Amino acid sequence: MSERYDLYYWPGIQGRGEFPRLVLEAAEAPYRDMARLDEAAGGGVPAMMRVLETGIGHHIPFAPPFLVVGDRLVAQSAEISAYLGERLGLAPDTEADRLFARTIALTTADLVTDAHDTHHPIATSLYYADQKPEALRRAQEFRGERMPKFLGWYEWLLEMNDHGVLVGDRLTYADLGLFQVMEGLRYAFPRRMGAIEGRYPRVIALHDAVAQHPAVARYLASPRRLPFNEDGIFRHYPELDGE
Amino acid sequence: MSERYDLYYWPGIQGRGEFPRLVLEAAEAPYRDMARLDEAAGGGVPAMMRVLETGIGHHIPFAPPFLVVGDRLVAQSAEISAYLGERLGLAPDTEADRLFARTIALTTADLVTDAHDTHHPIATSLYYADQKPEALRRAQEFRGERMPKFLGWYEWLLEMNDHGVLVGDRLTYADLGLFQVMEGLRYAFPRRMGAIEGRYPRVIALHDAVAQHPAVARYLASPRRLPFNEDGIFRHYPELDGE
Repeated sequence: MSERYDLYYWPGIQGRGEFPRLVLEAAEAPYRDMARLDEAAGGGVPAMMRVLETGIGHHIPFAPPFLVVGDRLVAQSAEISAYLGERLGLAPDTEADRLFARTIALTTADLVTDAHDTHHPIATSLYYADQKPEALRRAQEFRGERMPKFLGWYEWLLEMNDHGVLVGDRLTYADLGLFQVMEGLRYAFPRRMGAIEGRYPRVIALHDAVAQHPAVARYLASPRRLPFNEDGIFRHYPELDGE
Repeated sequence: MSERYDLYYWPGIQGRGEFPRLVLEAAEAPYRDMARLDEAAGGGVPAMMRVLETGIGHHIPFAPPFLVVGDRLVAQSAEISAYLGERLGLAPDTEADRLFARTIALTTADLVTDAHDTHHPIATSLYYADQKPEALRRAQEFRGERMPKFLGWYEWLLEMNDHGVLVGDRLTYADLGLFQVMEGLRYAFPRRMGAIEGRYPRVIALHDAVAQHPAVARYLASPRRLPFNEDGIFRHYPELDGE
């Protein structure tokens, strides 16, 4: 466990990089946030671009975030979170529970893509202003159909489990992912969340328990936790929100 | 390895279920395609709905496809494929290669979502006809930006590796996923693929090698391989295609 983890992600946003970052922080693991380091120290966006161009031992990621550990490269937010969680004591114990934690993390990644596409329903390469009519429609469907479906699923998992966590009997990376999604949805859709989140009391209790986890609480209060903003995945555009 | 695999997915389409199904077929593993079995034999869509409602030992999937093996439930197309590939001899040997195979499979799942959203850019709950103007725009971006980006990445991986496969030195589930994506893109976007696929000779060679794999070839010629259709993920709507 004395290996060092190098996480690479865009430096100005929480985005998809925040999911593995929360696992590293909750585990108090030794890691470097490479694109946020000085270029003089071998970091910065140029260091990230070098890996995107040449890879690590012929393993080239399609996009950030990605993690480099020795000769290993892992990309995709949910896969990095699972890999770290299983190595750092933030995964369940049994094989059945471990597999289900992975299932949850990947489903959370789908929710994140859905939330992203509310402001970019046509193309990531275009500005929000250039796809606003489509965004208004997609956001309406997201608020009305998708948000209750995902949140209801998490609530149902918590109701089936007796331990106040999504899977197994203690906190895992799957719970950290739900915490982050709740943070993001509250930031992006405060009116909608205000209207519906009372339906999901177990989800809220788990969110609050994660926020009070000592290492997580220290991280959230530190400058390492970037604020949400309108360059990230969860963006607050009031016209996309509504009860 | 004598355990039986029960795969659950919508019976009328290839969709996301085709990725794990190809792994099971290539490995000649004993499996049941549950929703395509008779209801009298404990199969059919009602059997699938039962698992979606009550789960397996409190593990409830969000959506099909999912796999049940004994007391284990795994959902998410890429995760099921990785789980099966690693158990059935269709994964690389080293840890670094195994992690990268997972990275590839998850990136392929992103491409599949992108392809799906060309005909459903606003909501899966709406008909295509009710989101056609948005679909025309999203498909144009997909053809112009996303298809070359994904296909160029696969080609680059094949160029970096010396073995004619995406990772490691023999066929894995990551290659089966690329095969399926090529089949789907050719079905949905024949004009666009005709215009650009010559740029990706290594991808085409790998696709052809998978098609000639004996167990895969037998599967493709069997009635178990459903044809593509306009209820699936890859749909041929001529107005969404173009050079």
